[in-house]
Amino acid sequence: MGGDHGPSVILPACQSFLAAHPNAELLLVGLPEALAGAVAWPRCRVVPATEVVLMDDTIEVALRRKKNSSMRVAVSQLQSVGGAAAAADVCVSAGNTGALMAVSRYLLKTLDGIDRPAIASVMPNQTGGYTTMLDLGANVDCTAEHLLQFALMGTALVTAVDGKPEPRVGLLNIGEEAIKGSETIKRAGELLRQAAAAGQLNFIGNVEGNDIFNGSVDLVVCDGFVGNVALKTAEGLATMIITIIREEFGRSWLTKLVAVLALPVLKRFKGRVDHRRFNGAALLGLRGLVFKSHGSADAFAFENALNRAYDAARNRLLDRVHDRIIATLLAMPLSPPNQGAAAGNSNDSGDQAINVAQAA
Amino acid sequence: MGGDHGPSVILPACQSFLAAHPNAELLLVGLPEALAGAVAWPRCRVVPATEVVLMDDTIEVALRRKKNSSMRVAVSQLQSVGGAAAAADVCVSAGNTGALMAVSRYLLKTLDGIDRPAIASVMPNQTGGYTTMLDLGANVDCTAEHLLQFALMGTALVTAVDGKPEPRVGLLNIGEEAIKGSETIKRAGELLRQAAAAGQLNFIGNVEGNDIFNGSVDLVVCDGFVGNVALKTAEGLATMIITIIREEFGRSWLTKLVAVLALPVLKRFKGRVDHRRFNGAALLGLRGLVFKSHGSADAFAFENALNRAYDAARNRLLDRVHDRIIATLLAMPLSPPNQGAAAGNSNDSGDQAINVAQAA
Repeated sequence: MGGDHGPSVILPACQSFLAAHPNAELLLVGLPEALAGAVAWPRCRVVPATEVVLMDDTIEVALRRKKNSSMRVAVSQLQSVGGAAAAADVCVSAGNTGALMAVSRYLLKTLDGIDRPAIASVMPNQTGGYTTMLDLGANVDCTAEHLLQFALMGTALVTAVDGKPEPRVGLLNIGEEAIKGSETIKRAGELLRQAAAAGQLNFIGNVEGNDIFNGSVDLVVCDGFVGNVALKTAEGLATMIITIIREEFGRSWLTKLVAVLALPVLKRFKGRVDHRRFNGAALLGLRGLVFKSHGSADAFAFENALNRAYDAARNRLLDRVHDRIIATLLAMPLSPPNQGAAAGNSNDSGDQAINVAQAA
Repeated sequence: MGGDHGPSVILPACQSFLAAHPNAELLLVGLPEALAGAVAWPRCRVVPATEVVLMDDTIEVALRRKKNSSMRVAVSQLQSVGGAAAAADVCVSAGNTGALMAVSRYLLKTLDGIDRPAIASVMPNQTGGYTTMLDLGANVDCTAEHLLQFALMGTALVTAVDGKPEPRVGLLNIGEEAIKGSETIKRAGELLRQAAAAGQLNFIGNVEGNDIFNGSVDLVVCDGFVGNVALKTAEGLATMIITIIREEFGRSWLTKLVAVLALPVLKRFKGRVDHRRFNGAALLGLRGLVFKSHGSADAFAFENALNRAYDAARNRLLDRVHDRIIATLLAMPLSPPNQGAAAGNSNDSGDQAINVAQAA
């Protein structure tokens, strides 16, 4: 039901997705009348909900008032009830990001060893591939431990969805030298080096904003404030450049003629930077797989989000995140308590220790 | 002497600048043999130095060892000795940014009411104008008070160099609502609203990364970590887009032919996003005007940095920064001490109060 266009975009995307993946099954969650067109589809079932979380609903409304919303019912399909398997392996929504994160966190809870879930997305890079980045806005203030967890979760994501066995992890900073950045960033660098030494991830060191696009790194780790600013800055610049190209080619009948001749080139260019190809952000660190499509997604973009979600589920992303976090917590020397206290995180560290014990 | 190309680029830029500005005078600081070509120029004098700060010299080397470097001698031209007027009104360097900031700060000291200098630069926007942004890397951890000072200094810069009387100031955040962001950002928003209510600046509220490029704001305020990441992200994306456009137009003889036809359009496009037009970052908050050219600047770019510096000096940027800071400190209600302490900044606030008293 979510996003700017709702079922008018989501249903065609789902139909195309089902045709492309003969082993996939879909649960379509929403107002039955809006999903009536999909009732007869094979490998598809409509799960009714009576309400819809709107794009401008507060988290409060999504969590406490709309208890039978399509978003909430969809996420609840990931919960196993009374020991039975969950109805769904992964949930995809184009709805309100803040509400989706809050509802997911409330219903699913975080994984052992994870303090905070994070949002990971991908951006195209110069080599024709793409770069995964997290966090993109879920967490404004992060400790070094959070950044390490993001790196581990992001590594699991890239191995599962992109099939790269040893993704190169970079810590977003304002210089390549280890002495650069805030105390939190420097400490995060230390933890990442320790995790790399313990064989848990492939840390290549600090990276800068331009490295997001040059293909030198597979995964860029940062706090949610910086990640969100970088993402929106890139979106803003891309919009400006496309606007200027359009204006310049539309300036006269002569430039318009050239534009017609250049159309195949411009189309290829647009295809290579088309953000619709990269749609589908992962909400990582929860006890269930949730993917977020851009609200403005068209059918092509939404189908890409479905594809990413499907790959994540098929390649057992949830297990990969869990295993990597637990292995790292077991492999890495425990921080002295004063360091945990200095990071303002001593309680969380305590919880982590207990969680590991439960898992072990 | 600074930058990737040194005098081979800087001398032609200076010659062209002098021709364009009949009232300007230049002091060229550096190794006399490297500047010999300029000895006979009118309104120009060579000031000898015996050393050069290299791009990879540490701040330690620039400050303590190379005491007769061209950088240090150039900045010292801004100091008034024994009550006499300073030899220069503004200093421009293409050298090592960290060294330039450290040397400038050491020799010039900060203005009354300024805790930390900041680096401000401009980026093109969609409306054909540009957006000024600070801090771009001088300050990694900032308090709300620092961000307020950046807003005031940036406002003075935009009024002086761009001639906009009431620049629209935005606080870089991850959402437009006042409740978004970290505690520091929220408190900075409060201070900016207070300063606006006191008539000291034109605060339009929170802005997001994309607003840097859409022309909705004249001045974007952020801490140096976020600013540096945003700047480098934009540079990286621009590089990628230009690379892809080149690759796509170079794909075959047919696309190359189209590229020739599209050349005037592509040139106009390139001109509108050409960062050389926007060269010349200001080091603000010091008791002297220092401008930093990009190290890779060519003569066209370096001349633009000279132009910006000249406009800043002509339009009394130093007085404007000083006046605006003092007026704001006098106009704004003093923070209760517990808020200052919460921001970890009680000592700085104390210093500020003393400085105001001295100035008054």
